[in-house]
Order: sequence, then structure tokens, then C-alpha cells
Amino acid sequence: MTGPGARIDLPDEVAVVNIGLTAFADALRAQACQVQEVDWRIPGGGDPVVVDLLKRVYGDAAVSIDAANREVVHRLDSGVPRLVDVRPLREAVPAIAASGTRSLLHCGPEIGWPDMCDPLRRSARAAVVAAGWAESTTAAQRLLDAGAVALHPAADHDVVVPMATVIGPDDPVFVVEDQESGARAFAPVNQGPGEVAWFGVDSVAAIERLRFLRDVAGPALHRVVELHGPVDVLGLAAQGVQIGDDVHLRTQGTTNLLIRSLLPELAELPDRPRRELAGFLSGNHLFFLNLAMAGAKALTLWAGQVPGSSIVTTMARNGTTFGIRLAGSSRWHLAAAPLIADALYAPGHGPESAAPDIGDSAVLELVGLGGAAAAGSPAVAAFLGGTMRDAAAATELMRQICVGESSRFTLPVLDFGGTPVGVDVRSVVESGVTPRINTGILDAHDGSGQVGAGVAAAPLDCFVSALGALAERVAVQ
Amino acid sequence: MTGPGARIDLPDEVAVVNIGLTAFADALRAQACQVQEVDWRIPGGGDPVVVDLLKRVYGDAAVSIDAANREVVHRLDSGVPRLVDVRPLREAVPAIAASGTRSLLHCGPEIGWPDMCDPLRRSARAAVVAAGWAESTTAAQRLLDAGAVALHPAADHDVVVPMATVIGPDDPVFVVEDQESGARAFAPVNQGPGEVAWFGVDSVAAIERLRFLRDVAGPALHRVVELHGPVDVLGLAAQGVQIGDDVHLRTQGTTNLLIRSLLPELAELPDRPRRELAGFLSGNHLFFLNLAMAGAKALTLWAGQVPGSSIVTTMARNGTTFGIRLAGSSRWHLAAAPLIADALYAPGHGPESAAPDIGDSAVLELVGLGGAAAAGSPAVAAFLGGTMRDAAAATELMRQICVGESSRFTLPVLDFGGTPVGVDVRSVVESGVTPRINTGILDAHDGSGQVGAGVAAAPLDCFVSALGALAERVAVQ
Repeated sequence: MTGPGARIDLPDEVAVVNIGLTAFADALRAQACQVQEVDWRIPGGGDPVVVDLLKRVYGDAAVSIDAANREVVHRLDSGVPRLVDVRPLREAVPAIAASGTRSLLHCGPEIGWPDMCDPLRRSARAAVVAAGWAESTTAAQRLLDAGAVALHPAADHDVVVPMATVIGPDDPVFVVEDQESGARAFAPVNQGPGEVAWFGVDSVAAIERLRFLRDVAGPALHRVVELHGPVDVLGLAAQGVQIGDDVHLRTQGTTNLLIRSLLPELAELPDRPRRELAGFLSGNHLFFLNLAMAGAKALTLWAGQVPGSSIVTTMARNGTTFGIRLAGSSRWHLAAAPLIADALYAPGHGPESAAPDIGDSAVLELVGLGGAAAAGSPAVAAFLGGTMRDAAAATELMRQICVGESSRFTLPVLDFGGTPVGVDVRSVVESGVTPRINTGILDAHDGSGQVGAGVAAAPLDCFVSALGALAERVAVQ
Repeated sequence: MTGPGARIDLPDEVAVVNIGLTAFADALRAQACQVQEVDWRIPGGGDPVVVDLLKRVYGDAAVSIDAANREVVHRLDSGVPRLVDVRPLREAVPAIAASGTRSLLHCGPEIGWPDMCDPLRRSARAAVVAAGWAESTTAAQRLLDAGAVALHPAADHDVVVPMATVIGPDDPVFVVEDQESGARAFAPVNQGPGEVAWFGVDSVAAIERLRFLRDVAGPALHRVVELHGPVDVLGLAAQGVQIGDDVHLRTQGTTNLLIRSLLPELAELPDRPRRELAGFLSGNHLFFLNLAMAGAKALTLWAGQVPGSSIVTTMARNGTTFGIRLAGSSRWHLAAAPLIADALYAPGHGPESAAPDIGDSAVLELVGLGGAAAAGSPAVAAFLGGTMRDAAAATELMRQICVGESSRFTLPVLDFGGTPVGVDVRSVVESGVTPRINTGILDAHDGSGQVGAGVAAAPLDCFVSALGALAERVAVQ
């Protein structure tokens, strides 16, 4: 009992635990007081609407959501997507041929021609010319302006395309099938570095590259896969993570592994395709990227069939909008495509000439690759401050918002711990930390192609929207 | 002034610096006293003869030795060895053909047939049969027993051969030339994993592999290099160090880089050699090892021309003896080949069936690769305790005995610091720390080939002997 006049025993030493605002801790440290800081932030930034949404998806609802999430993570972690074929899009995805119209598939959420960003428009023009629907990019522009070419999101057909890729019915795609579920996903053959349409270039050389892929590389790769048999895509990616690939911004190690494993079948090809494909592969350290994306897409297709989960299974950008979908729902949640904040630019370029974040490749970040695997990649570290600690911090950010850990993608520098898997929209909104996406940067205006690379932070708005939709679905149950 | 009765001001707190024996520090810590430990050991283990030698190569002599060492490290760090040709040994090294006798080159210091270890004898028998000098390994054994085949150290002809490799006049060798000095070094084409003579196997398949290398792979690689032009060997190795290769125990990343860069020329080969070479390369993740060794040898040949240095420029083992030479001297200093202490074995094998350390590949440890680059290699970490910290400790041990740092081999996990270069015999003897060599382990008795891999510690005796010779040379000057 303490009352007026009672003796109060004060301790000789005081140590403080400071939760939240750092300013309080700083003031105590200035007085030589020991402070243990806890990095706590007001959930949802303190917005009452958001806090209410969070309440609705935690509490009682959390039991079923957590159970669904465990199944989603299980699928993302245990599926075995294998490359089983390379064939023209119209054969792989019959709906494309059946539509009977001139159709192109583009990256990201649905978007009309007038709203597309410059690199995506250039890529579409190049695709129209390569498809033989127009003689020149000027003529292609007229067709597109007139609405004479249908533009669909690749995502509507289980196809994933990187950066500003646009593909037509005759373009070759990797066919990847998940051995566990039978889920099939597709991605075009990577166009390589340099003067190429997927970087938003519509030059003669860029169009010629599309024709080469269609007429030479596609049929040759079809034959190579036929001779070799199925390729375990993420088995290669797992090796890549051991050797400095994040398997998004850097795919060189995995590309090289794939090429060495396909060498006997490449040697069997007839003269012309063999020579031309060898030259192309030799100069394309990015070759594995699209294949990894198709593998990741097959996983998210299977995982996306689980209802009632709070985990993101689609994340894609078209250079104008950024969109996500949750497992168990076909509804897109959109926000403006962000600029890429942590970036390095080629000489003569900078943020002023950079297009916003673009492409379907962010699917990699949903399965434990890309930003989730940054910690193991010296190449990615260069874009994040230069040290491996900077790269590790990117992976730790992803860990804050993920519910699981990969058992196949392990990071030597983190004592062979798994990369984070399963982005939980609840954790994203609660913490305000959004997925980090390792990505290239395209020129915004003049078709000069890739001007840099870096790490994009996904915009928070679409996650808040997805949380709202989840809260509604939970309430209905 | 303090005398009897004078007041002595004792400090309130005492902190202690403890140099050497840890037991003193432990006692103080038990009394809650702060102790800063310095890891100091008696130089040369306190042996008066060794301490006298150390005195003679430090002090006044150190000025000229240090100057010579700087030049040696400069050469080891700045030479640019390039693969310029692949051709039969007799053409690359005319002295072999000129000898007019049946000659084989073996790894390590000079050694007679009766003293060779079992794997080396098996490899020699396989080489004799492959050369067409005997119909069977039994007949080969008779020729070798009778002294009808001359056995020379590869090192006498600027050739480096890994593990238990033995080569004859018709076997193909990489010709590597240092662009800075013109120094030329040679290494045979790697035989690949499995049932192969360089692992001490003398089976029909092992002999067939030698014939394949001579008749198919050698001429095909000659053509590939002719078409491609020179290959910057250590430029590739530098990329390898960024992606988890120590470029000794693990060379997969660098092998894959090389294969992708040679892909267009491989595609140009005629049918049979193209197919057979493609199959061989696809299954050989060790292919770059021998090429890296030839590159390292070219550097040490140039560096070895500097007189008066205390830096080791030859380090080689034949499975019986371990030998080193210092820059500026042709004199070998020998010790018994050590067993490999830190090792992992294939199931059914263990230290009891392990042959001692063997091969010329330790030349890699002299130029900043292998043990010096262990810190960056998850694969090597597995042999050293399992964590990347264990691997980093191996590199740090090498740093204790090296005078310089590589500017081309940099380790991402050590903030892109250079690997240690220039093993100083003075530091080795003073500290008792000997070079760490990442290496394979062969079966000692029954020809079952590679049974494990690990990290060998070089024996101290040969370094003490080399230090003695250096002290003599310094005294004469």
C-alpha cells in the first residue's frame, strides 16, 4: 500500500522496452538509459475501416482461413511443374484459335489499347507485324487503333508473359504441367536481351527476333523436349538459388544448368536450327526466366483452387495497373502500377525515363523466388545497396508477410533456411509491408528498351481491396 | 614515488588483455573480470632451430623478400591466362616426343613406380593400355615393373594434372598462355566423374574414356577453340566465384558458363564428334577444373621467375609425397602426403579406405581459388561443418598465411572482398597454419574410384624445409 508519505522503493537501474515510435527510445538513450526497441506499428496505419476489416479476418474467421492457407502453402511448396512440350500458342491454348479473330495476349490485368503504356504498345505493334497482319508498325498501329486486333490478358488463359511481352497465336510457348495436380501453365520462349519487343522495342530487329522464335527456336525446342523428356523446372530453380540466382532478376545459373542438361538433344538438331538456336542460347542468360514463370504459374493455379484463403495467387502488372487475386477467387484487385524505387540505371537513363512496373513475372515472388530469394543473390544485392546484408533485408521483409517457408528453395547464407512462401494479404495490410519484386525497368517513351533494373514495392491499395473482399466472403459463410 | 606507507591509487575497475594461453583468460572471467583475448602462439612452435630460421628471414632480409613478394603477388593477380589451343601432349610439349621413349607424366613430385600409391598405379596401367603399349592392365603392369615406361612429373614440363591423372604423348592437353608474360602451361582434358582413371580406376570403361578423349574429344575441342578464339580462363573463374564455385572442389558454375559461351562452336562440329562431345560435356560438371589448373599454373610459372621471394609457387602431391617450391627456386621440399581430415564419404566408405591427398590441383590454392575461395561456396561448406560460417573460417585461415588479396576473385559473402593470394612460407611456419586444399578423396586399395571429398591441410614439414632453404639463399646474398 502506498499513500501520501509512504516510502516508495525506486530501483537503482531502469531498463525500458519501447514499443513503436523510435523518438521515445532516442530520448531515453540520450539519458544513458538502456532501451530495447520493439518495431511495432499501428495495424493498418490506424485507419478505422481497415482495422475493422482486419478484425473480421482474424478472430473466429482465422481458424478456417489459416487452414485454407496451410493447404495453399502445401501446394505452392510441393507441386512439381515439368516442362513437357513447346508448341504454338494456338495449339497449347485452343481457345485462342477458336476465337477466330486476330488476338494477342498481353501481360497483367485487362487493359484497353488506349490505356496501354508506350513499351506495351510498341510490343503489340511488333507482334502484329510479326504475325503478318500488317506490313509495318505504322500499319499495325492503325489496326490496333481501329480495334481490329483483340487484346486479352494472358492470365485469362493460364499464360504468364514477362515485362512488356505480347504474343500471338503462332508464337511458341512452353507447356508446363504440375505432376501433382495436372495443372497446366504456359509461357512464351524468352526473347533474349538487347533490341527486343518484350523490352518495349518495335524495331526491325525486334520483329525479326519474334519471327526467329516462331520459325526456328520454337520448333527446335519442341524437338529438344521431345527427345529429352520432361524437365523438372523448379528442381533446376532450386539449384539456381544455391548459386546466386534469385530466379527472377538473375536466371543465369539456372539457364546454364538447363542448357548443359539439354546439350545432347541440342546436338541432335538438323544443321540450320541447331546453329541458330545455339547462337541464340549462347547469348541469352535470361532464357530460364519464362520457364520459371510457367512453373510458378502451374503452382499458383493449383493453389488458387483452394477456397477461403488469404494468400495471394496472382500478382501481375501491365505497366498501367497492378493487380492481385486471392486463392479461391477470380476477382482482380487493382492499383496504379508503381515506379521502381530501388533501382540502378544504364548510363544516360534515370527515373525520369522509367516506365512503371510491368509484366507477369511477379508470380515468382508468390512461390519463394525473386524478392523472396534475394538474400542469396550477389547480383540482386547490387540493386539494393551493394552488400549481401541489403539483399538479406529484402528477403526478411518478404518473410514478415508470408505464412510459410519453402522446403525446396533454401538459402546458403541464411544457414540453408527456406525462402518465404505464401503472401498473406492480412499480414500485408496489417504491417503495411508489400511484396518486393525484383524486376527490369523499361524506357517509358522512346522505345530504347531496358534502361535499368531494381526492386519494386507492390502498391498497398490492391491488398486493402482484396482484404475487403475476403472479409465479405468470410461474413457470407 | 611509491614507498612503504605511500598511498597507492588502485583503479576501481580492471580490464585485462590476455595474450596466448586461454587458460589465464578463463580464470579471470571466472572472477567476473573483463578479458580481451589475443590469439598469439609461440612462433614456430617455440622450436629454437625454427625460431632462428624465422629471425634470418625477417629483420634486415625482410626488405628484399617483401619487395620480391609484392612482385610475385602482382603477377599472380594480374596475369591473364587464355586457352589458345587443345592438342596432343607430344605437339604441345615437344620434349615428350623428342625423348623417343615410352613416357608418361604423373601428378606431384618425382616418384618411382614401386613407391606409387595404388590409385596412381592403376591410372598408369590404364594409360599404358590406352596408349597401345600393352593389351591388358596385367601386361601394362609387367611393362611398368620392368621399367619399360619412363615416368616423369608433369610439373617438369609445365603440365598440371588433377588427382591421380597419368597422361601419355597422344593425350590431348589444353594449351593456356598468359597474355601478360607469354608463359605457357598445360593440362589434360578432364576425364569426367564416375569410372575414370584419374580417380584411380583401371577398368575397361576407364580405358575407353581415355581413348574417347584422345580420339574424339581432343580433336573436337581443338576445332572448337580454333573457331571460338582464345578464352579468358580466370575471367570465367572470377564469375564462378560469384556463383558458389570455389573453382576446385566445385567447378560446376564455371563449367556451365564455359559451355554456354562455346555453344555456337560446338554446334558447328561434324555429326559424330558433336554428338559424343555434347553427351560427355552434359555429364561432366568437373570439366572446367583442369582448365582452371592450367590457368593457375601459367600464373605461377610467371610469378615463379621472381627471385628471393618467400611465396610458394608450386604445391603438388602424388599420393605418397607432398611437395612445394618457392618462387625463384627449382628445389622441391617434400613431406609425406597427408590424409584428408575434414571429409565426407560416400556410403560404405570412410577414412580407413581413403588414399592420401593426391594431384596437382593444389596450384589453385596458390592463386586465390579452392580453399582460399571456400567462403563463397555452399557446396564446400557441406564438407566443413555445414554452414557458410565454417566455409568462411577456411578462407580466413588462408588469409592468415597469405600476403595479398585477389582483385579478380571477390567473395559476395565477405562484402565482395578479395580472396587471399600469395602463401608466404614465413607466415606458415611462424603460425603453424598450413594451406587448406579443397580436394577429392580416392579409394586407397581396390580401384573403386572417388570415395569422398574434403579439405586437406598441407603438412608443415615441407614449409619448414623451404624456409630453411630461403634462409640459406638470403644469407648468401
